[in-house]
Amino acid sequence: MSVNIARENGKKRVVIVGGGFGGLKLANELSGAGFQVILLDKNNYHQFPPLIYQVASAGLEPSSISFPFRKIFSKKKDVYFRMGEARLVYPEKNILQTSIGKIEYDYLVLAAGTTSNFFGNKHIEEEAIPMKTLSEAMGLRNALLSNFERSVTCATEQERRELLNVVIVGGGATGVEIAGALAEMKRYVLPKDYPDMDNNLLHIYLLEATDRLLAGMSSESSVKSAEFLRSMGVKVCLGKKVLDYQDHKVILEDGTEIPTRTFIWVSGVCANAIGNLPDSVYGRGRRLKVDAYNHVEGFSNIFSIGDQCIMLGADPDYPNGHPQLAQVAIQQGKLLADNLLRKEKGQAMKPFRYRNLGSMATVGRNKAVAEFSKVKTQGWIAWLLWLVVHLRSILGVRNKINVLMNWMWSYLTYDRSFRLIIYARKAKEVIDREKREAEVHWGEEGAPQR
Amino acid sequence: MSVNIARENGKKRVVIVGGGFGGLKLANELSGAGFQVILLDKNNYHQFPPLIYQVASAGLEPSSISFPFRKIFSKKKDVYFRMGEARLVYPEKNILQTSIGKIEYDYLVLAAGTTSNFFGNKHIEEEAIPMKTLSEAMGLRNALLSNFERSVTCATEQERRELLNVVIVGGGATGVEIAGALAEMKRYVLPKDYPDMDNNLLHIYLLEATDRLLAGMSSESSVKSAEFLRSMGVKVCLGKKVLDYQDHKVILEDGTEIPTRTFIWVSGVCANAIGNLPDSVYGRGRRLKVDAYNHVEGFSNIFSIGDQCIMLGADPDYPNGHPQLAQVAIQQGKLLADNLLRKEKGQAMKPFRYRNLGSMATVGRNKAVAEFSKVKTQGWIAWLLWLVVHLRSILGVRNKINVLMNWMWSYLTYDRSFRLIIYARKAKEVIDREKREAEVHWGEEGAPQR
Repeated sequence: MSVNIARENGKKRVVIVGGGFGGLKLANELSGAGFQVILLDKNNYHQFPPLIYQVASAGLEPSSISFPFRKIFSKKKDVYFRMGEARLVYPEKNILQTSIGKIEYDYLVLAAGTTSNFFGNKHIEEEAIPMKTLSEAMGLRNALLSNFERSVTCATEQERRELLNVVIVGGGATGVEIAGALAEMKRYVLPKDYPDMDNNLLHIYLLEATDRLLAGMSSESSVKSAEFLRSMGVKVCLGKKVLDYQDHKVILEDGTEIPTRTFIWVSGVCANAIGNLPDSVYGRGRRLKVDAYNHVEGFSNIFSIGDQCIMLGADPDYPNGHPQLAQVAIQQGKLLADNLLRKEKGQAMKPFRYRNLGSMATVGRNKAVAEFSKVKTQGWIAWLLWLVVHLRSILGVRNKINVLMNWMWSYLTYDRSFRLIIYARKAKEVIDREKREAEVHWGEEGAPQR
Repeated sequence: MSVNIARENGKKRVVIVGGGFGGLKLANELSGAGFQVILLDKNNYHQFPPLIYQVASAGLEPSSISFPFRKIFSKKKDVYFRMGEARLVYPEKNILQTSIGKIEYDYLVLAAGTTSNFFGNKHIEEEAIPMKTLSEAMGLRNALLSNFERSVTCATEQERRELLNVVIVGGGATGVEIAGALAEMKRYVLPKDYPDMDNNLLHIYLLEATDRLLAGMSSESSVKSAEFLRSMGVKVCLGKKVLDYQDHKVILEDGTEIPTRTFIWVSGVCANAIGNLPDSVYGRGRRLKVDAYNHVEGFSNIFSIGDQCIMLGADPDYPNGHPQLAQVAIQQGKLLADNLLRKEKGQAMKPFRYRNLGSMATVGRNKAVAEFSKVKTQGWIAWLLWLVVHLRSILGVRNKINVLMNWMWSYLTYDRSFRLIIYARKAKEVIDREKREAEVHWGEEGAPQR
């Protein structure tokens, strides 16, 4: 296996790991600037995480919030896409070892984002349903719908209760948004779909370990979002820490047990791992410590941007690091492109300063919270703002139209269109290949050894 | 587990296995006619098989050609949907044993359709990619796209050849249509997506064991469709029988070997199995032999309609049985609803006569073949007809709009929108449940025994 891209005379090569908001912005900005850009991602598409919860709750199709990298780059001759996973860095050799072979770089940018953090609990890791990726969102949708189907025919009241309780752990934006979406599904869709199900048996729990929802926002937004959710029938439980999940029961620190077979985990993230960097570069949540120019600590040609990195003590407004938000990643990607050009021209690089454009979370129809520097708003204005901001940010005219149409349809009909339980069948060829790749061991030389 | 539906006084219960064209038509026609109708399907949605090949070739999303049963029946109080699989019939007790427990019936209608027939070859069954269901179509799409990705980085020319050869076995409508769709993808999409792939290395083979394509249609249509496909670069190989698939090579009867890792099997079907019926009821391809009223041979209250049954010597125009087409199933479903009502009223039932509304197959843009009683047409008129007929037949306004928009978009842009490799993650709860269900053994009494 090899990346199969020849070096170009006189062009420095920038290898970007991860095509999320940061990596994609960087690649697009670098295109046409005299570099050879290689973007590596484990998926063949860019995705739009803020709407993943709508895929999980059957309101959108995954294709509406994702976009094939090859289509994005089809007119950019200097940007190469490769599907694969980064494994190890050999900084002294400027080589990145990946699942598709080794790649030489002049500049390496780690923009691989985060993954769900189960805080070391194996039961939870195995049994909980995370919601970070489109694949997980589809899995949650399928599990949710098949649990509902199952609740109609199951043998015991105990099992029925487990099947109909939905427990969401984590009161950040994702937890709030999926709780709201499921509450609306319960209210508007399920009674029609399941005339023989007792809707009162279906309970949606939102558990948060701290004393408020939306910790990243103001306390007004926290209070209002909890109020919205409660008015929609969600059992919002604050100050409740989850200890374990056993025998279809979520076990809380205070001894309470909540029976459920739909145990959704959106409680925290840690940065995606990359091997062979010194331990000293890791900050909290496995994030890579970077300086004001996004250099990974101690390296002059390895950078990290977005959720995977943490910038400590460099941005005066955020001495303890930035929140893990799309805007931070996008602004870092844009500045880094600029800085790489400056560096090539022998100019001084500019330090990063995050410009907070505001934050928002939606709970349901006409219900959202939003805050911008000095303005805070809740309710339908916030909700409309949320719609506009997200629609604008989705990549591609086609996708924008699709999402808008789906939203209008759902708003008018109170319906969720995509209540289908479908698992793509995995071809044996694909299974075999994945097994082979997982068995490859990576030697010191950066060459695969079997 | 139990079906959890109470008998209603004075209402006969009709249990329908399978919600395809025939079963769904029957359920809809029976609704409001004084029966209690239970429809059992292993999926929670009705699907539209004629367009499954467009899902596989990334032109449509699965949701556009499927429709949740619960939504279809949400206003029909006398039709109950249950998700599950039929296992055994106990005719003497009027009980159907299913994966969700036993169901009593007054009338049982088997409308479970067909599954891929691998003619007993285990290698082919394991390794080939079938395309009968949406799940398989999504699997094919994912496999195809990941094989293309892989071809860019693979180690050897041999592997590259295997990854870029696509071999389709079976020259029926499905084979012709998927071959045409992939040829267009090769021509219009892949050169843009993979500027570094040598498009000449990608070969699409369509292998057919008999001497013509589209055996169900006239020889004019056969010849013309082969001509269309060849003009689009498909290697159409007639009279080629596949013996085996080994080490990424398709082995033909004449000794030829074609290397491929995308081995698509659309070569034949056999009826879905149902246990505990006497051997004598099975005709060719495991189809259930029925009389002119769709009674399964020897039973007065068990019926079979659509692809799962074969009506021998009853319809004068089709003494050897009907073709396995949507129209046959729909017409049988409609007549059976009528006949069950007649029977209840003590009237004589009417024998089935198939009214052939014509048949068609599409090959590519402006290229299709169509024939109606005396008219045969090929080219863009046939293609337009094909579009109109299929669009009309898709269930739901929403889906019609979706499909039309996708078709217009693809026609104008030469693009395929859904080039995403996504596998839904399976939650452990769902995996465990499937395992449990597979382990249940069914006793003589129709009760599950563990």
